[in-house]
Amino acid sequence: MDYQSIINKIYNEVQPEVGKGRVADYIPALRNIDDHQFAMAVVTVAGKEFTVGKTDENFSIQSISKVFTLTLAMKDIGNKLWERVGREPSGTSFNSLVQLEYENGIPRNPFINAGAIVVSDAIFEGRGKTKNRILKFVRELSGNNTITFDEEIAESERIYGNRNRAMANLIKSFDNLTNQADDVLDIYFHQCAIAMNTLDLAKSFLYLANSGIDPKSGQQILDSRMCKKMNSLMLTCGLYDAVGDFAYRVGLPGKSGVGGGIVAVVPNELAVAVWSPALNKYGNSYAGTKALELFTTYANNSIF
Amino acid sequence: MDYQSIINKIYNEVQPEVGKGRVADYIPALRNIDDHQFAMAVVTVAGKEFTVGKTDENFSIQSISKVFTLTLAMKDIGNKLWERVGREPSGTSFNSLVQLEYENGIPRNPFINAGAIVVSDAIFEGRGKTKNRILKFVRELSGNNTITFDEEIAESERIYGNRNRAMANLIKSFDNLTNQADDVLDIYFHQCAIAMNTLDLAKSFLYLANSGIDPKSGQQILDSRMCKKMNSLMLTCGLYDAVGDFAYRVGLPGKSGVGGGIVAVVPNELAVAVWSPALNKYGNSYAGTKALELFTTYANNSIF
Amino acid sequence: MDYQSIINKIYNEVQPEVGKGRVADYIPALRNIDDHQFAMAVVTVAGKEFTVGKTDENFSIQSISKVFTLTLAMKDIGNKLWERVGREPSGTSFNSLVQLEYENGIPRNPFINAGAIVVSDAIFEGRGKTKNRILKFVRELSGNNTITFDEEIAESERIYGNRNRAMANLIKSFDNLTNQADDVLDIYFHQCAIAMNTLDLAKSFLYLANSGIDPKSGQQILDSRMCKKMNSLMLTCGLYDAVGDFAYRVGLPGKSGVGGGIVAVVPNELAVAVWSPALNKYGNSYAGTKALELFTTYANNSIF
Amino acid sequence: MDYQSIINKIYNEVQPEVGKGRVADYIPALRNIDDHQFAMAVVTVAGKEFTVGKTDENFSIQSISKVFTLTLAMKDIGNKLWERVGREPSGTSFNSLVQLEYENGIPRNPFINAGAIVVSDAIFEGRGKTKNRILKFVRELSGNNTITFDEEIAESERIYGNRNRAMANLIKSFDNLTNQADDVLDIYFHQCAIAMNTLDLAKSFLYLANSGIDPKSGQQILDSRMCKKMNSLMLTCGLYDAVGDFAYRVGLPGKSGVGGGIVAVVPNELAVAVWSPALNKYGNSYAGTKALELFTTYANNSIF
Repeated sequence: MDYQSIINKIYNEVQPEVGKGRVADYIPALRNIDDHQFAMAVVTVAGKEFTVGKTDENFSIQSISKVFTLTLAMKDIGNKLWERVGREPSGTSFNSLVQLEYENGIPRNPFINAGAIVVSDAIFEGRGKTKNRILKFVRELSGNNTITFDEEIAESERIYGNRNRAMANLIKSFDNLTNQADDVLDIYFHQCAIAMNTLDLAKSFLYLANSGIDPKSGQQILDSRMCKKMNSLMLTCGLYDAVGDFAYRVGLPGKSGVGGGIVAVVPNELAVAVWSPALNKYGNSYAGTKALELFTTYANNSIF
Repeated sequence: MDYQSIINKIYNEVQPEVGKGRVADYIPALRNIDDHQFAMAVVTVAGKEFTVGKTDENFSIQSISKVFTLTLAMKDIGNKLWERVGREPSGTSFNSLVQLEYENGIPRNPFINAGAIVVSDAIFEGRGKTKNRILKFVRELSGNNTITFDEEIAESERIYGNRNRAMANLIKSFDNLTNQADDVLDIYFHQCAIAMNTLDLAKSFLYLANSGIDPKSGQQILDSRMCKKMNSLMLTCGLYDAVGDFAYRVGLPGKSGVGGGIVAVVPNELAVAVWSPALNKYGNSYAGTKALELFTTYANNSIF
Repeated sequence: MDYQSIINKIYNEVQPEVGKGRVADYIPALRNIDDHQFAMAVVTVAGKEFTVGKTDENFSIQSISKVFTLTLAMKDIGNKLWERVGREPSGTSFNSLVQLEYENGIPRNPFINAGAIVVSDAIFEGRGKTKNRILKFVRELSGNNTITFDEEIAESERIYGNRNRAMANLIKSFDNLTNQADDVLDIYFHQCAIAMNTLDLAKSFLYLANSGIDPKSGQQILDSRMCKKMNSLMLTCGLYDAVGDFAYRVGLPGKSGVGGGIVAVVPNELAVAVWSPALNKYGNSYAGTKALELFTTYANNSIF
Repeated sequence: MDYQSIINKIYNEVQPEVGKGRVADYIPALRNIDDHQFAMAVVTVAGKEFTVGKTDENFSIQSISKVFTLTLAMKDIGNKLWERVGREPSGTSFNSLVQLEYENGIPRNPFINAGAIVVSDAIFEGRGKTKNRILKFVRELSGNNTITFDEEIAESERIYGNRNRAMANLIKSFDNLTNQADDVLDIYFHQCAIAMNTLDLAKSFLYLANSGIDPKSGQQILDSRMCKKMNSLMLTCGLYDAVGDFAYRVGLPGKSGVGGGIVAVVPNELAVAVWSPALNKYGNSYAGTKALELFTTYANNSIF
């Protein structure tokens, strides 16, 4: 079965699941989204694209952006980042302060909020400059120059961001934040508010399926060893506190966001993105997780 | 033995202990204090005063101020405060965020930092107005109109206050802070920076030894039942995570601060204050704790 | 108002509260008790006794027994016990293993289960000998030679004692248990199963109100300083995780058990015991706590 | 470079690392092992074997045995096991009781001690019968009928097993243990004491590289989907609290034991086992981890 047939089949099968779960409601700007939407896109390293559903509808990528900023930090300082952030699954909720307190302000991994805040601090060069760099990077990866921040969501994140603000200040109290908490949070709130569509999301992860090389431009985004390591980090830490469940059911390195997007990578073959806003109890897209589980079943391409 | 003889005797006995331990060093403004200072003052409800050592030297009362703001909050809203703050010993460090996260932003008691921040929020009526009210209250209790904030210390608290800022934002994320975190922290940082001397401190706690009535003015600060409750709170929660040790060794309701002050109350009889800046591992004055232990031994007046 | 009038008045007032809450149900042997029972007894150091309700009905004293074994350990090894057990409120549930794990097998205080297990280990001299000694001690204190273990309850504790067994083995894994876990637990399960009535319970705590001297026999059970310390421990640690609440509402050193008994001490004056089997959410007698709150209000004799 | 050349090269390169770290010392029976030993074996699904070092020296496989018992449980009850055990990385130490207490006796995953104890309970059919079944299974997988329990180690585990005993009793207190704690622990202590050599270990994991089929016998040990899931579990939970680090550096599903063994799987291709007794701070073989990192680097066969 070719990928188009597979995702068509999945599209039909997941219809009863679309809308199950609950959309993210921690900020008003996300609360009112229509929860009956679904999109799925596959792009291969060979350059083929397969789509089904609303793959040109923009959504808030939220935590998926942590992969982009981590990639930038890896390019900038490489393994030195690991002096400031761990690489282990957290075993606790993505926004927990407990682990930070017990472990002296060193976040467990770069994909929990605390870790991503440290990563944003590591690449900080001024509010405007850093935000521009992130946007430029995502635009290049996706090939879509219209991708931008949803400022309404960024502002909503800021207003309701007391817990992230607590986290940034706690990290700073342990001297693990170089810049001002509010400056770093401005980057963090904006990266979470990047709006892009499902197809562009799949495209922008393709370098992780291609030994670190963007197949469009031929540009080496990460060296091949670092690319493998990025995938391993996504597998062990990318799905909040459902990494074990996701690895068990889907079996691919991936990253999710509370906007309902999930993107995953089959090394040397493809990137696959899904989007459906209603979330399961772990904060991952309900229908999206199901769709990816079917995908590795039908395509028989989990990494295990 | 009369109280003057007792404290003279204590003064001599604790000399070898004065300077043991370490002065608070979390802010530069406290770090350089001469650690070989000691003062002790006893004031009775009958109006007698007994002093030894540097009892007219001002110091930063720090957490002792939490008793003053709690008293104001009790006057304002009484038992309604307990919807927002617990009354149990924390079992964890005074500046821990763990308990807050596990217990939905309800601080365990009003004497840990998080609890005092909520109390400051409860009495907040604007930065200037609230600070003036606190100052006026302490001046009336002590009878000393020159008592004021040490603005250098308050500013140092602000600059190095990332952990308290983390705490305030975490509380706010649980909707247990009505005002802006920075506004409430301004009150909190200033109340900690109240500078007063050991004799004034003893005087200003005398209402708690006198069924809630200030013996100088005859004014009812707290009703007699609430006064007992305040004492019980000091006994179970007033000494950071050394309440058990302090109750075991001293046996009086008391409150300590990292400036090296400790003040305690013998109900219906007296208030006793000590000051010596070097702290034991719990953050309580090393020599001060020792002096109070000797005091209840020689005067045989622990509440047990 | 004399004590008899006070407790009569309390008896009437608490009737609507008797039966509120839930009887302990963790072992079948306790589950079926009639929850509409109430008794209250006051005995003074001067030798007066006042009773109301079913004060000659035996009940399972459970954790109240921890005061008896701690007294024996204090007599045996005094302050050396504190190398093995702390003296701070736990801040967590009475049967938590978390604190033990974080603090290397040193229980936070002698009144949580883990601490009482270490105390039982400290006085262990063989199963039979130790149980006999405890029984003899309680009989002497109460003057009632018929007091004995309820073997059905002791057996039920053993059968359903997996959590205590976990605790004892965890303590042993940290080398803080000298004897075999099962031997120590045999003592522990039996001491919890001591059956006595409310009047005898008040009598057997009278030494703690009398500077450590049993007023009947004139025997010095504990020296006067140690007696005060025991009272301070009860106040800061004696009511599970409701010590702050109990100190706030009642204001006396006391100890409760899940059998529905609570006993408290007014230093130099009296011991007061209540019993009513239905428990509040903290595991303390619902009506009993209320009765003691009224007692210190009417008699105006809290220690604060 | 063929596999023999690769492991020869690795053998030379890791020599300076062999002996670094510390051998397990929690039981006397493991303490005195010569820490300068090293062995590495690769077996392919095509039937080739490559060895270097002391690959015929028996050692205690310890936690690696958890994969064998989990496989048996999967065969017996399949996904029903997940009602009793989670599938997420623990984020805490392999022998922690904290997580158990907070999560009602449901171990976070089958590879921490608590989880393995529940798995042993799930396959329990009597002490002798269960131990025989485990031994028979390992003998069939490895093709070596002399593999047996090291009874001295099993007895040492029992004697010093207070923490595991605590764990089993805690699990039982939550009704998540069907059989007697001591019976289940007898299985657990014995499975940890299986002695086998590095080559046999690699052979006995080959079914996990071969879609669940033992290539020697052609027998389907696990169906192909379940085999993938087992590999995903090893990747996310198999290396104690160093799963992230191992995935980052090695990039293969694997399982380690404190006896110094580690075995890993390249799906569809091979199983690789290493042994070197000195452990890094996470409890994984120091030289063994290094050797596997070099292996996936030189063979370029991590799953990412």
